[in-house]
Amino acid sequence: MGNDRYYSLNLNIRGIGQSPTLAVNELSKQLQAKGKHIYRMGLGQSPFPVPSPVVEALKMHAHEKDYLAVNGLDILRKAVARYHRQTDAVDMSSRNVLIGPGSKELMFLLQLVYYGDIILPTPCWVSYAPQAKIIGRNIRLIHTTFDDNWLITHERLEDYLSGENDQYKPRLLILNYPSNPHGGTYTQEELKGIAKIARKHEMIILSDEIYGQLHHEGRHISIARFYPERTIISSGLSKWCGAGGWRLGTFAFPSTLDWLMNSMAAVASETYTSVSAPIQYAAVRAFQGGIVIERYLCHVRRILSYIGKRGAEIFASAGIRVHQPEGAFYLFIDFSQYSDKLITKGVVDSNTLCERLLHDTGVAILPGASFQRPEQELTARLAYVDFDGSKALAQSETIPLDEKLSEDFGDHCCVPVFDAIHKIVDWMK
Amino acid sequence: MGNDRYYSLNLNIRGIGQSPTLAVNELSKQLQAKGKHIYRMGLGQSPFPVPSPVVEALKMHAHEKDYLAVNGLDILRKAVARYHRQTDAVDMSSRNVLIGPGSKELMFLLQLVYYGDIILPTPCWVSYAPQAKIIGRNIRLIHTTFDDNWLITHERLEDYLSGENDQYKPRLLILNYPSNPHGGTYTQEELKGIAKIARKHEMIILSDEIYGQLHHEGRHISIARFYPERTIISSGLSKWCGAGGWRLGTFAFPSTLDWLMNSMAAVASETYTSVSAPIQYAAVRAFQGGIVIERYLCHVRRILSYIGKRGAEIFASAGIRVHQPEGAFYLFIDFSQYSDKLITKGVVDSNTLCERLLHDTGVAILPGASFQRPEQELTARLAYVDFDGSKALAQSETIPLDEKLSEDFGDHCCVPVFDAIHKIVDWMK
Repeated sequence: MGNDRYYSLNLNIRGIGQSPTLAVNELSKQLQAKGKHIYRMGLGQSPFPVPSPVVEALKMHAHEKDYLAVNGLDILRKAVARYHRQTDAVDMSSRNVLIGPGSKELMFLLQLVYYGDIILPTPCWVSYAPQAKIIGRNIRLIHTTFDDNWLITHERLEDYLSGENDQYKPRLLILNYPSNPHGGTYTQEELKGIAKIARKHEMIILSDEIYGQLHHEGRHISIARFYPERTIISSGLSKWCGAGGWRLGTFAFPSTLDWLMNSMAAVASETYTSVSAPIQYAAVRAFQGGIVIERYLCHVRRILSYIGKRGAEIFASAGIRVHQPEGAFYLFIDFSQYSDKLITKGVVDSNTLCERLLHDTGVAILPGASFQRPEQELTARLAYVDFDGSKALAQSETIPLDEKLSEDFGDHCCVPVFDAIHKIVDWMK
Repeated sequence: MGNDRYYSLNLNIRGIGQSPTLAVNELSKQLQAKGKHIYRMGLGQSPFPVPSPVVEALKMHAHEKDYLAVNGLDILRKAVARYHRQTDAVDMSSRNVLIGPGSKELMFLLQLVYYGDIILPTPCWVSYAPQAKIIGRNIRLIHTTFDDNWLITHERLEDYLSGENDQYKPRLLILNYPSNPHGGTYTQEELKGIAKIARKHEMIILSDEIYGQLHHEGRHISIARFYPERTIISSGLSKWCGAGGWRLGTFAFPSTLDWLMNSMAAVASETYTSVSAPIQYAAVRAFQGGIVIERYLCHVRRILSYIGKRGAEIFASAGIRVHQPEGAFYLFIDFSQYSDKLITKGVVDSNTLCERLLHDTGVAILPGASFQRPEQELTARLAYVDFDGSKALAQSETIPLDEKLSEDFGDHCCVPVFDAIHKIVDWMK
């Protein structure tokens, strides 16, 4: 922020830069403008278009101009509640749903109104911790390991909590699965185990399931099934509906957390007021689902699964550790096997790793440090989204859904992604 | 919030209800649902439709799905800068513009990042003070008077500041003109006087000019002309463009306040991310203006001026004090002449006044207390917006723009507004 010695700024804000994903995106654009070819694997934006019935719904409601209710348009809240009942098999009524301008904004409001520690298993999404810092909340990181598939186990959670010597301390555990940044997800047994520990401590869980519909096999399970009384399910249009730029997120609360939802709505009414009316009307169509959207999702999942699997294989064959993702569109790469070689290049932390990589190869990925991993750990997230989603969808639609995509599918549709992965591998060697 | 003894809530949030305008709106809807006819003069929502070229632009861009840059779409920032250069005669470049999901959200971010006192001349808009409370900032109210047209004078401002004994204390003065809740505005001389005091104290001014284009004579002047170095101009689509529900606000900064804008953008990137992409593309069309939008504005101003003038006359003839508005769509009514009569009805504060009025007559207006006036003061804001804006526009379009609207214009187009005013007057008597 330049010479800000004399500026009167909130101390929690000083030193906070732009969100790393957005910053990498903007830097990549600048390099591109200078003529360098950039593989944009930094920002986690769905490459797929918004399904056409949803775009049509937006056109149809373009004239809607009224301020809508703070909690959201009634028919949208109903559609979201029905969606969670159907896809997550949880009890949910429209009055338990809160609509916001992106789930990120809702998470910020949650952290702002709730007075408690924020517990983050890492690697975790880039914005949870900065939000806590802005608000001044305590952040408690629990580092997971590659061998745990980067997932928190209930034993690790229990260890951490019992070490705090305060069973009922107000705590907010943020889980995110399928995960950004690694695409892994929890089994039913693991979720049950975590639920049990959470219940013992009466801990609130924010279950960030924005990638739930992008489980590659369509078999996402919400922890709300096993811990309904204190789980908030976070979702939205950004990932499965390809509408990140539309900015619509949803929170679904149990009735026992009405006090939290109402407080968040009170703050919402003094901040963003309500979500854009035409967008909310269009979102009704998205959450209603139906055959067109279901087919769209099936193709999207098949394509993402294919790329994730093949990408992981390429890294593995070069001795670079990465888990094959089970959902979403990320690979969380562990370059530690190459640490000796990287030291000779002067690379001893993930930030330098990603800067050098972007500079040398034009591949933009995000350092593990952005996901709250230790700075010296040589990890990074690759968002495999730099391809023409419309073209890939069209190509996939020519192949029956019960077939697998052939090995060479990506040679037609996802060239930049595999080019980028090969460039990383070559640079490592 | 019910029995919240055991809830772990941020203390700044406890007791904060929904924004009064939104709460009255929702309560009115509920009463309506029970069959009572409600005159909805509580919420300050433009009754006019979004101009058709702007609605068409939204349809045209319904497929836009990318996350846009945090500060806003480049062509929109350019359009907003040009708009301010042309309408406000201030120096402004696109890099000084920040786009947010409503100017209310931007104001919240400003209060969150800036560390200073918030100075509010009252009556003031309902959300400035609750925002400061949520964040924990000091609020300094300066009460104005009916005889000052509810406007702050530079003398009053100077008195307050010199009483603080700290010339350069970080302070944010929020001015709003044409004003919500009273429709009054400042003369060029008054703005120059305030600018002089502000400069002496190096105070930042947030100049909320969301009603600037709704100056009834089209002669709005921004204080940024006289105090460019520390004035932030706040505007947006909600009022002049009839698009409150779309949620798009704009802040225009001087380059000297880059540090504030950058800090706000950093927080934006961790909260709302960016404003809905289709909405931003459509807003470009709105800020580009042109003949269709200019004519729309001329009709809108003429209608609002007509209602404001006639409404004020009806109150005046009943001995109820109110100033004729010069802009926007509000009458700020002072019932103090009737205080003896009101006491006999058990009405000794503005909240009771408005509750009783809503209950007895079905007219929903907002108490002066919501605008930070002393609770015992018998004032209230009437938003004269409960009429069919499309119909009124169509009727106005049959009358040449250089003519005044005839006395009986409202008998065709704005019946509920005048009915409500007569109901208030009758209830008082």
